[in-house]
Amino acid sequence: MKRVGLVLTGLGRVGTRFFELVGRRSEEVGRTFGLDLRLMAAAKSDGTFFTGSPLARKEIFRNGDLWTVDNPAWRPGLSVGSLFRSLEPGCLVECGPSDHRTGEPGLELISAALSGGWNVTVASKGALVVAYRKLVELASRHNVRLKFSAAAGAALPALDVGTVALAGTQITVVEGILNGTTNFILTKMAAGKTYVDALKEAQAKGIAEPDPSDDVKGWDTASKILILANACLGTDLHLEDVSVDGITGVSTAAIKAALAKGEKLKLLGLCSQRPGGGWETSVRVASLPDTHPLHHIEEAEKAVTFTTVEMGTVTVSGGRSNPLGAAAALLKDIINIYR
Amino acid sequence: MKRVGLVLTGLGRVGTRFFELVGRRSEEVGRTFGLDLRLMAAAKSDGTFFTGSPLARKEIFRNGDLWTVDNPAWRPGLSVGSLFRSLEPGCLVECGPSDHRTGEPGLELISAALSGGWNVTVASKGALVVAYRKLVELASRHNVRLKFSAAAGAALPALDVGTVALAGTQITVVEGILNGTTNFILTKMAAGKTYVDALKEAQAKGIAEPDPSDDVKGWDTASKILILANACLGTDLHLEDVSVDGITGVSTAAIKAALAKGEKLKLLGLCSQRPGGGWETSVRVASLPDTHPLHHIEEAEKAVTFTTVEMGTVTVSGGRSNPLGAAAALLKDIINIYR
Repeated sequence: MKRVGLVLTGLGRVGTRFFELVGRRSEEVGRTFGLDLRLMAAAKSDGTFFTGSPLARKEIFRNGDLWTVDNPAWRPGLSVGSLFRSLEPGCLVECGPSDHRTGEPGLELISAALSGGWNVTVASKGALVVAYRKLVELASRHNVRLKFSAAAGAALPALDVGTVALAGTQITVVEGILNGTTNFILTKMAAGKTYVDALKEAQAKGIAEPDPSDDVKGWDTASKILILANACLGTDLHLEDVSVDGITGVSTAAIKAALAKGEKLKLLGLCSQRPGGGWETSVRVASLPDTHPLHHIEEAEKAVTFTTVEMGTVTVSGGRSNPLGAAAALLKDIINIYR
Repeated sequence: MKRVGLVLTGLGRVGTRFFELVGRRSEEVGRTFGLDLRLMAAAKSDGTFFTGSPLARKEIFRNGDLWTVDNPAWRPGLSVGSLFRSLEPGCLVECGPSDHRTGEPGLELISAALSGGWNVTVASKGALVVAYRKLVELASRHNVRLKFSAAAGAALPALDVGTVALAGTQITVVEGILNGTTNFILTKMAAGKTYVDALKEAQAKGIAEPDPSDDVKGWDTASKILILANACLGTDLHLEDVSVDGITGVSTAAIKAALAKGEKLKLLGLCSQRPGGGWETSVRVASLPDTHPLHHIEEAEKAVTFTTVEMGTVTVSGGRSNPLGAAAALLKDIINIYR
């Protein structure tokens, strides 16, 4: 049995689900993969749950809420940075928020972990969008692994397909429906709803955020296609390299015109090889015929299609877009680092 | 640069394509993955191409054909078994035929390689169908890896998704359209052709074999769902555990009745968890509504859907079903063993 110490940062919805999932699946993970996962610390921005021993659920939660008052396991002000130095290196599970312009606070945290000899798996996109190549090089220099399945599709295994399943092939195009909210809205508009009503329904169902602008303006898709391209195609793209358009300008008339031709409008993140070399990266609404593998992806589902020289096209679709799906993607990354 | 010696067995369509592919992609594989792939031997049933140095194309082929007469690199009667002992251990690339009842000659060859400390990637199904668990245990005992992407879907990355992308999740159902010939025939029948005409078209296009019985009676699908289940679910299934039905009994009337309901008939390989424990494995024609992720898989395309507790359903589709696709799957396995 290989002992793997985990440090979890961020105790929001994904982090909390991850904590629960490790508790529920650790026995099976031990039996199947020979890994003894031990959650050694769980950090928020203002302190860390830490006892020196693996944390039990009851040391962090009381009545379903985080328990920080009069809890001997709660160490206000303790930063995980010090733990990277004092604990035996294991894996950082980064579930905190991160800014898409600066990558912080995730970027500093991930850099510190990698430099300290820790493997890392990341759920939020900011640090990767800002400094993907720098982080990969840091990991390589310190002979550790950086994984980020949860940041580029959560339970949709876009990265595993692009980097593992297609290893050694020549990928010429990566295109995906990478945002559930916009696909849900376009699906409902195709069924006759207005944009405003479709958005309201998405919000009522918890699919769309109260402020949906990051999704509907295409920036969430832009971050994901950028991460996918950098990981699967070896590019070094930044957000300013992506031509970004959203769905706010899509009219019911345009959707009807597409349907009349047997096509559907979808918001695609797209990175394709230019004939003369280099890559063209965009987020835009495209009209897809029913022969296109992404034509049938409906509601809040996501999918990505890779076009390759040797294997033809390969499409992967599905995977839950909720915190449990993201938590399972983090656990999967850890298993694949250590198995 | 990590040096990886390869021994290729079987110089049929897949083996020949693999030889060419390694030549064409080796520089890129070196640059991207730091692997120096060296094809040290290429064997047929009656002898082996072997010089002691990495083989060049011109040492094996002359005018596009295998060159065995007056070729100093051709060693009649030389068996690869002796090479497993004399060469530095690398990876066996097994592309020979293998019998579905005995697993031979692949089974003996793979066993010898694993026992000799060689990693193995396999393109044919026989040995895996007969002795999956035994081979996995042999690999484990000798601390080497056994991979077989090409045997369970060729370029369709069913195994990578089931074993890597879903690692740590609880998979409850694996179901797939795993045979291109039968899906092509059912698609053409849905468009109005008779079974006989659809089969003839599949044969004319090189999709179906001259003797299609292994496909149309469901045995090819049975072998593949068995390999997938054993690899992804931890089962130890054998062919006699699979209830097998093919498409020869499917009538045009049944297809029309399904279409009238908005459904399509598909030949599914299916392995699902029984409520009381254990697994139910079958090959059968199922009528799929358009909400089913496999409903839209048409013509000779293949796809597999995994249902999981944590990630919901994940479907992977596509991947070329030709010798180049299989060769690329073998190369991918090698990269993933050594990267």
